[in-house]
Amino acid sequence: MASGKEFFLTFDVFMSLLDWFGVVVFAITGALVASRKEMDLTGFALLGTVTGIGGGTIRDLLLGIRPIFWVEDPRYVLFCVAVSALVFLTTPAITARRRLLLWFDAVGLALFAVTGAERALEAGTGAVVAVLMGMITATFGGIIRDVLGNESPAILSREVYATAALVGAAAFAMLMAVGVDREAAVIASVLAGFLVRSAALIFGWSLPRYRPRPGRPDGEP
Amino acid sequence: MASGKEFFLTFDVFMSLLDWFGVVVFAITGALVASRKEMDLTGFALLGTVTGIGGGTIRDLLLGIRPIFWVEDPRYVLFCVAVSALVFLTTPAITARRRLLLWFDAVGLALFAVTGAERALEAGTGAVVAVLMGMITATFGGIIRDVLGNESPAILSREVYATAALVGAAAFAMLMAVGVDREAAVIASVLAGFLVRSAALIFGWSLPRYRPRPGRPDGEP
Amino acid sequence: MASGKEFFLTFDVFMSLLDWFGVVVFAITGALVASRKEMDLTGFALLGTVTGIGGGTIRDLLLGIRPIFWVEDPRYVLFCVAVSALVFLTTPAITARRRLLLWFDAVGLALFAVTGAERALEAGTGAVVAVLMGMITATFGGIIRDVLGNESPAILSREVYATAALVGAAAFAMLMAVGVDREAAVIASVLAGFLVRSAALIFGWSLPRYRPRPGRPDGEP
Repeated sequence: MASGKEFFLTFDVFMSLLDWFGVVVFAITGALVASRKEMDLTGFALLGTVTGIGGGTIRDLLLGIRPIFWVEDPRYVLFCVAVSALVFLTTPAITARRRLLLWFDAVGLALFAVTGAERALEAGTGAVVAVLMGMITATFGGIIRDVLGNESPAILSREVYATAALVGAAAFAMLMAVGVDREAAVIASVLAGFLVRSAALIFGWSLPRYRPRPGRPDGEP
Repeated sequence: MASGKEFFLTFDVFMSLLDWFGVVVFAITGALVASRKEMDLTGFALLGTVTGIGGGTIRDLLLGIRPIFWVEDPRYVLFCVAVSALVFLTTPAITARRRLLLWFDAVGLALFAVTGAERALEAGTGAVVAVLMGMITATFGGIIRDVLGNESPAILSREVYATAALVGAAAFAMLMAVGVDREAAVIASVLAGFLVRSAALIFGWSLPRYRPRPGRPDGEP
Repeated sequence: MASGKEFFLTFDVFMSLLDWFGVVVFAITGALVASRKEMDLTGFALLGTVTGIGGGTIRDLLLGIRPIFWVEDPRYVLFCVAVSALVFLTTPAITARRRLLLWFDAVGLALFAVTGAERALEAGTGAVVAVLMGMITATFGGIIRDVLGNESPAILSREVYATAALVGAAAFAMLMAVGVDREAAVIASVLAGFLVRSAALIFGWSLPRYRPRPGRPDGEP
């Protein structure tokens, strides 16, 4: 039976594995945008890498954390480049599993939201900023991907996505504020974020979009 | 009759109110781009927030100021989100007052140019960098807004806009350099920037644009 | 005959001249995008400046170097603005020499890759991060240029470009790791990067691009 310390180590190893999993999934979504644009290997590597580590990079920049996580451990970048090259070679096999990828992406989203919030709390911020940093970590990699790929940012017009990051990060900040154990708080809040995103995928949830009312013209011509 | 200290407090309160006013106006312009693109609430909140606080964020990043202003006081972000949600609900009423909004925007522009320059001087930079930081504070929120909204940055092809920020920030840096009181320098330079932008709005001022000469083809086909 | 110290000074002056040369060339390419979009002077100045100093700015931000190089020496910015204004006045003469400009750009690319890697090593990073910073310094100015100019980033679909930066930066990191003199390492690695880019220009080298296989539809419709 594992002692407390052994469980702690196991949990951190598990979290670290999930973290790498999230980076890989996000890198794949970046490389797939490169494939849609028929880019060369450089394009795959750039889009895969900025998607995989972009959100965390902006989080660390905004929090003033130095060194930035991938400057401290550049294996993150090398991994993103390797994954992107793999996608370059196997794109048809991956696009055929796009639906599966959406579920992996949901895991990455929920995880990054929580680990981003945790990193902010560790840096000494309050709960509101921690929630914001969780959302930024989870979504800004994809935003940079879409800007560089010259696509309208998916987050801006897609079904419930940023909201799932909000739920995960907010759940974590609240659970930590009321003194729940870190491990339990992480597990519960990653699940919460994942469930919201899952429901959106299954039921097609989306937020109401703004539509000009017919017969009452407004907006730019 | 107010003592010096009382006037100082009053002036700072007044400046703080104007600062919030500027953030609100910029957030509205961001949310309006979201409405033109028929985005959902997330899009409104993101575009409203990056427009409201984006310029100051880049300024603080470049100056190495930590914590960034909204990490220190996250009410800025909450306010931008609230304003964006309000725009989501009342877009037709706001677009009907677009002309009025341009004037509010001119106030925000002049104000951010001066407060941005002041923050740089406080951080110990020279006058040239302070002027640049004033311009960045006033214009980069709008640039990020247009990039995320997939529009060509308005600043790049619009009538006199960045120039008004330049005038306001440069006036402030010069007045401070010659030893004018801070209060007087702020008032005079905000007015200077606002007047330039006002004149542009009233008289349709614009800078000359590059046009290829007819009969002499150049540039990409 | 020059003593060691005199050679060192001479070499640093030479490097400094090359550095300015690179900034000027990159600023010109930025201003030329502004001319293609028929922007006004503000657009020329903004695009010229972000292209000239954007890569180094992101490098310094990521490395946590403060003050950023152009905050310390704002002549970089003034120079970019001046160059952009000159391009505004003389665009036809410059576009007529576009081929020549590609060669100048190759010099800037190789130089920025090496000086960027050197700045990272000086900041205490390992070789991998130094290579990444060299590539970022050499290419991210152009990426920001293309995003602001609403063009698909050239680096993402063009012939061998980022690869030349990779070769230059990696050569420098390796030569420094094995103890080669700084001067010799700089000269050799700038030449290496320049030669790769030159070969790409002369022979039309390009990396393989992803293309969906005919008869096997994949990707978004």
